[in-house]
Amino acid sequence: MKEFVVIGLGRFGSSVARSLMKNGNEVLAIDKKEERINKLRDELTHVVEADAADGDVLESLGVGNFDVGIVSIGDDVHANILTTLILKEHGVSQVLSRAVNEMHGKILTRVGADEVVFPERDMGERIAEHLLSENMLDYIEVSPDHSIIEITAPEFMVDKTLKEINLRSDYDINLMVIKRGDELNLTPGGNNKIREGDVLVLLGENKQLESIK
Amino acid sequence: MKEFVVIGLGRFGSSVARSLMKNGNEVLAIDKKEERINKLRDELTHVVEADAADGDVLESLGVGNFDVGIVSIGDDVHANILTTLILKEHGVSQVLSRAVNEMHGKILTRVGADEVVFPERDMGERIAEHLLSENMLDYIEVSPDHSIIEITAPEFMVDKTLKEINLRSDYDINLMVIKRGDELNLTPGGNNKIREGDVLVLLGENKQLESIK
Ligand SMILES: Nc1ncnc2c1ncn2[C@@H]1O[C@H](COP(=O)(O)OP(=O)(O)OP(=O)(O)O)[C@@H](O)[C@H]1O
Ligand SMILES: Nc1ncnc2c1ncn2[C@@H]1O[C@H](COP(=O)(O)OP(=O)(O)OP(=O)(O)O)[C@@H](O)[C@H]1O
Ligand SMILES: [Ca+2]
Ligand SMILES: [Ca+2]
Ligand SMILES: [Ca+2]
Ligand SMILES: [Ca+2]
Repeated sequence: MKEFVVIGLGRFGSSVARSLMKNGNEVLAIDKKEERINKLRDELTHVVEADAADGDVLESLGVGNFDVGIVSIGDDVHANILTTLILKEHGVSQVLSRAVNEMHGKILTRVGADEVVFPERDMGERIAEHLLSENMLDYIEVSPDHSIIEITAPEFMVDKTLKEINLRSDYDINLMVIKRGDELNLTPGGNNKIREGDVLVLLGENKQLESIK
Repeated sequence: MKEFVVIGLGRFGSSVARSLMKNGNEVLAIDKKEERINKLRDELTHVVEADAADGDVLESLGVGNFDVGIVSIGDDVHANILTTLILKEHGVSQVLSRAVNEMHGKILTRVGADEVVFPERDMGERIAEHLLSENMLDYIEVSPDHSIIEITAPEFMVDKTLKEINLRSDYDINLMVIKRGDELNLTPGGNNKIREGDVLVLLGENKQLESIK
């Protein structure tokens, strides 16, 4: 079992800490603001009020014994970079740091962050994607030009069988799942008929997927 | 073509606005801080410095003519709620608002938001998920107990053929894609051999997927 230390308990950091806890992991959560700490005291087992940018503080908390460090300080870019550096210097083998922009991300990599994330930017892109195709529910980019998408069945498919729709031969698209309410069909066949409101999981080239969704 | 208005250009809002623009859409971006506006002036076509919580301001900008409104104001919960309400009252048919916590989300729904998003919370959950299974790259929850996951091939599969691994019969897991560098195999067959570093896309029950990843 790995041990995690999360530093900076804004919305992002506290969500990471909570999710790790929920999955049964040991989490030490640190923030310099008392009110943040008090808010989370009941939910997290180990919460400490401390300024992480002060090297001695993290050392006295024994951060060197943790396997994974998450630096989720946001606006204070300087504290964020310093904390990342300190964690690496104390031997935390995996450090994931949050960046506020590209340049900040580059600096984090330079000082040793093993991974850099841009929570607001990435979620902004996901939301834009979602707004642009309303029937799109979720997706995985499999490669720069292939994706798996989860969509509400487009109108032109409704009340047709897969044989009639011909996704494979006309679009080279693979229909992997049909979801109707709670029911999953993981082996859709030619005689299955699509109904209004069905959710489909499709694998194919982006261009082809664009053309049908 | 739909027209979008994005209000509040922090990291989240500017990412949404940029992504919508990149996809060729008309975007009006509004922030009350001059420095935010100046930063984005070159990238976005229509940027306006204005306080959105002032009803007359949005009216004079003709927000009623927009199809989709994105309220990405963060910390100022009051301005966020007021702006959501104003957009709905002016007839914007789809309003997506960002919430900072559950209670805020509930209020937004009450005042008419068509969708409520929690960018930092959701990204925090995704990152925790990612940290807990390092070889997991991405996933779609297809149902409460079925998922599609993109993972780096686990060690026990390396240098074995699919026939030897027997994902289908032993785990009821469907291997949909093998990615090796830039090469995609969208129709993996029994004689395909998994190599170290291959990326796999798998569909199956969460319990079974857990047991192999
Ligand atoms: N030196 C530090 N040591 C410990 N905690 C810190 C330090 N600097 C900032 N923090 C904490 O980091 C947390 C998150 O940072 P901040 O508020 O700057 O980002 P945010 O963008 O508002 O957060 P979010 O987007 O996650 O809600 C805050 O709770 C803040 O108190
Ligand atoms: N009444 C308002 N009218 C227009 N813009 C506003 C208003 N109130 C706040 N904003 C803008 O909303 C933007 C984002 O809000 P805020 O800074 O509170 O959230 P944040 O959590 O720091 O942002 P992010 O997480 O997206 O980086 C800011 O640029 C701010 O100037
Ligand atoms: Ca902030
Ligand atoms: Ca934020
Ligand atoms: Ca991916
Ligand atoms: Ca889903």
